[in-house]
Amino acid sequence: MWRYLKRLLIGKPLKTTDEGGQALTKFKALALLSSDALSSVAYGTEQITTVLITLSAAALMYQLWVAALVLVLLFAITLSYQQIIHAYPSGGGAYVVATTNWGQPAGLVAGGSLLVDYMLTVAVSVTSGTDAIISAIPAISAHQVGISIILVLLIMGLNLRGMRESASMLTLPVYFFILMIFVMIGWGIFEIVTGHVAYHASAAVGAPVQGMTLVLFFRAFSSGSSSLTGVEAISNAVPNFRKPKSHNASATLAIMASILAFFFGGITFLSYYLGIKPMADNTVLSQIGQAVFGHGLIYYLLQLATAAILAVAANTGFSAFPILAYNLAKDKFLPHAYLDRGDRLGYSNGIISLAVGAIFLIIIFHGKTSLLIPLYAVGVFVPFTLSQSGMIRHWFRVREGKWGLKACINFLGAFISLSLVICLFLLHFGNVWPYLIVMPALIYMFYRIHRHYMNVARQLRISENSDTVNHHYDGATVIVLVSDVTQVTAHAIDYARSVGDYVIAMHVSFDENPRKEHKTAQKFKVEFPDVRFVDIHSSYRSIITPTLRFCDVIAKRAAERNFTTTVLVPQFVPRRPWQNVLHNQTALRLRSALNTRQNIIVSTYSYHLKR
Amino acid sequence: MWRYLKRLLIGKPLKTTDEGGQALTKFKALALLSSDALSSVAYGTEQITTVLITLSAAALMYQLWVAALVLVLLFAITLSYQQIIHAYPSGGGAYVVATTNWGQPAGLVAGGSLLVDYMLTVAVSVTSGTDAIISAIPAISAHQVGISIILVLLIMGLNLRGMRESASMLTLPVYFFILMIFVMIGWGIFEIVTGHVAYHASAAVGAPVQGMTLVLFFRAFSSGSSSLTGVEAISNAVPNFRKPKSHNASATLAIMASILAFFFGGITFLSYYLGIKPMADNTVLSQIGQAVFGHGLIYYLLQLATAAILAVAANTGFSAFPILAYNLAKDKFLPHAYLDRGDRLGYSNGIISLAVGAIFLIIIFHGKTSLLIPLYAVGVFVPFTLSQSGMIRHWFRVREGKWGLKACINFLGAFISLSLVICLFLLHFGNVWPYLIVMPALIYMFYRIHRHYMNVARQLRISENSDTVNHHYDGATVIVLVSDVTQVTAHAIDYARSVGDYVIAMHVSFDENPRKEHKTAQKFKVEFPDVRFVDIHSSYRSIITPTLRFCDVIAKRAAERNFTTTVLVPQFVPRRPWQNVLHNQTALRLRSALNTRQNIIVSTYSYHLKR
Repeated sequence: MWRYLKRLLIGKPLKTTDEGGQALTKFKALALLSSDALSSVAYGTEQITTVLITLSAAALMYQLWVAALVLVLLFAITLSYQQIIHAYPSGGGAYVVATTNWGQPAGLVAGGSLLVDYMLTVAVSVTSGTDAIISAIPAISAHQVGISIILVLLIMGLNLRGMRESASMLTLPVYFFILMIFVMIGWGIFEIVTGHVAYHASAAVGAPVQGMTLVLFFRAFSSGSSSLTGVEAISNAVPNFRKPKSHNASATLAIMASILAFFFGGITFLSYYLGIKPMADNTVLSQIGQAVFGHGLIYYLLQLATAAILAVAANTGFSAFPILAYNLAKDKFLPHAYLDRGDRLGYSNGIISLAVGAIFLIIIFHGKTSLLIPLYAVGVFVPFTLSQSGMIRHWFRVREGKWGLKACINFLGAFISLSLVICLFLLHFGNVWPYLIVMPALIYMFYRIHRHYMNVARQLRISENSDTVNHHYDGATVIVLVSDVTQVTAHAIDYARSVGDYVIAMHVSFDENPRKEHKTAQKFKVEFPDVRFVDIHSSYRSIITPTLRFCDVIAKRAAERNFTTTVLVPQFVPRRPWQNVLHNQTALRLRSALNTRQNIIVSTYSYHLKR
Repeated sequence: MWRYLKRLLIGKPLKTTDEGGQALTKFKALALLSSDALSSVAYGTEQITTVLITLSAAALMYQLWVAALVLVLLFAITLSYQQIIHAYPSGGGAYVVATTNWGQPAGLVAGGSLLVDYMLTVAVSVTSGTDAIISAIPAISAHQVGISIILVLLIMGLNLRGMRESASMLTLPVYFFILMIFVMIGWGIFEIVTGHVAYHASAAVGAPVQGMTLVLFFRAFSSGSSSLTGVEAISNAVPNFRKPKSHNASATLAIMASILAFFFGGITFLSYYLGIKPMADNTVLSQIGQAVFGHGLIYYLLQLATAAILAVAANTGFSAFPILAYNLAKDKFLPHAYLDRGDRLGYSNGIISLAVGAIFLIIIFHGKTSLLIPLYAVGVFVPFTLSQSGMIRHWFRVREGKWGLKACINFLGAFISLSLVICLFLLHFGNVWPYLIVMPALIYMFYRIHRHYMNVARQLRISENSDTVNHHYDGATVIVLVSDVTQVTAHAIDYARSVGDYVIAMHVSFDENPRKEHKTAQKFKVEFPDVRFVDIHSSYRSIITPTLRFCDVIAKRAAERNFTTTVLVPQFVPRRPWQNVLHNQTALRLRSALNTRQNIIVSTYSYHLKR
């Protein structure tokens, strides 16, 4: 039943060779790799205004200055990442760059941050998508957490099916969103220029705002920096581009950064000009849309486009997380289970872990985007800092071309990223502190897992001069556990004689019914006169302890004769699984108890009942 | 950890021979076997008044007539059971008497009824005990269900520890209760006679009561019949009495019935005379106590005695249920698990099943005694009817002594019991209907289980002329599953050669890394040049299917050569259990897949890691 259900939901298994490489054109790459970054504009401006409104409506004026600083940051980071693209044409994820240039520990910090970060990408994109849906349909605002969880499960399901067939389908929402935002900004500015939309800004640019502090400004800035999440995606995916790979990737990054800059700038300007204040059930982007388009069809299309690109952005987490988990597992820092592919070639365990993590985050943060943002930003900018600063080392090591200039650019990127991380910890500590608990725990786990795998590998390796290998035994002792003389016992004894040179039958008897016990021994001797029958008496109605004790003695004697010791546990298998509850599970308990012995091999004789 | 906890709560295991028989004196038997019956007075009168008050306060006068009829019923049933005691000196439970005289189906109806009935005994006694506690301490009335569940778990814990050591301790609450009720009735009548207590009856005996109907009268009567629950206990326990067993048991039953009659009559009279009306948080018995003793120490002692005897009554369910389950399991109508004794000689599975059932009943009936009573009464009087009517058949078969008179007495018992069952179904259908669903389900289950055990026994039996027994095989083929060439493989191959005449190593390779696969084969051939190595290629990354297919082929060939087939699954066991999550569980899945094959024996080679 489970198999059919799985087949229905996931689709039929694919062969490994079914996997085909397809090189990405710039057009397709832009769609596939930029959704995370571009969708950030759905919540970036909102995060800035949410901080500023805590002071006053007039303070909203400062969103323009904060946005300007974010755009500078975007420019610096774009330049930095273009350098990474050229330096690491085989894909320069933060884990790789940090490991190569700063060593394993820094790489693990970057890797751990990114694992958490991808969970946050999914959580933030989905909750923000839910915000967009709720803005359009306020009636369902009470079900925010539920809707978000269902969305995560849906995207997980699609990924378990495998995304290959639908990859080109994903370009649609991205270009739809790009189109809608272009139209919105263009139409909005046209309306402003033609005077159809009134000037509602709560304060003029440059007007003094009472109570404005540098702390508040940087709080707003660090929240707004969440608009830059996802910029690194292209640098990780260089090998997937058409040739010349690095050139194409770099150009795509430039195009994406330009669009992002235009969108972020335009939206923030409109937000300022229209005097929009953040509201609980109506996102800033939705309010701008309503102001520009009115409450008609085009507005609903905008919300649909926003929700759709956020879903695609969440999906990028589902592409990236399993690959990172795969790389960490290959380096033996995560369980091997992340190396296994599912029926549809996706790394199912990674996909499921990510969904579980994202749902967990959504639940503990009550599905509130603004509470998730600071943690998300930390998770993004810590690896940024590590990879950018790693690049400085890279240039100092390589020393070719204009390496001094390039190092300066990366220094700028690293500096801004580091400043942001410090800002976030100082100004948003209340939301960011879990990072300080989760990261050390993750790093500790990585090392524990690594040490275990190393230990196991060392113990399993066959060394040249080991005397244990190719040991030749002179024979095999087989102990058959007998509870009663039945068909099962008879077949098991026949089998035992085929594998063993010396067969012993062992029976545990209790006080309760001495006559019956005697009968078992007699019956056995009639059936198998040539097999030694040992009756062990137990006063405590426990089968396990006397059996273990007896088997240990026999195993010791067998070892003295250079024999192996096998314990054969006969059991019958009822035709229907529910019938197992009608039979005692002694065989199971005996097997697990005997499995603790190094020198005893446990074998099960299964007799299948026909009715 | 679990073991230490269990040892702490349950105590150290006991030897089977530790069980000592102790013959019961009348004094001790009265205490041990009468708690269920005597404690019924704590709720019997209350059930009558609860029904009558639905008409009017004046109708409460009829409780005297109802009580009179209940006393007649008690007399008839006592006589009937005295006859059962003499006819079945080895213990005449309803299951035995009904099975012997009416055949297996009737016995199963009686047995099934009693299984449910014991759960109801526990549920009713415990909720009624909770009522007594709440009457004394009304502040905790909101926690009725919680208190009842805790009481059930406490009594279960005591029974899992084994009750032997505390059996004599149980006599204390019973005699304490007998003393308290004697004093209460005596003192109450003394006060009435001396005129210290005023006459408050809501209507004089014989006064016409408007709206009184026969239906209401019999509703009250059938509720009041719950006072007779537990009368059968002595007849089940005849073998435990001192010699002359039947005589002593019969005398004890007579004493118990007399006390019960006096208590029930006295309490009902006081309830009538004092004009007591049933209340939610104050039981009738508690109200009488307050009226007679005032609100002082003696009243609290009365409540304590009531709660204590009800706890002992619940405990009788815990003695009787596991023994009945044992008998049903011995006759192969319940799972064998009920035959197993726990560490402390109690039938742990029966004890736990009973507690779970009682807690379930308490929860679905919200811990309300009056809702449980009608179902309880049905569960009691159905087996009564079956065993009493069975006795009529018994006398007609035996035809000795005054068998005609005896048959008449049993006919009276059977007739009254049957009338009561009909009354309950007609007048309390709303509370009794679950019986009509549970009983057929139980009977069906009994027969399914029985058929299964019979089927199994037939298939396992060794028949004289069976050709499968003592088959001599010419050798053993052993297939070793190899994932990689490690210490585990090496040891497993060594072992395989000790048991097998023909050893094959099998490896499943995937597309992903053809070079690595080739290396595994090479490495193996270097280490084991004389073992055949088969590399099976899988395109779907599934190990199970190709392994099964290969093993089936080899097993067929082995059978042709008269060889047995063993599949050896090598695995390593990490030192700590948590480390298992770091290794894939392929071995487990392979084992369970291979276990579906009749002709393949699965053996596990466990290599224990030291670090």
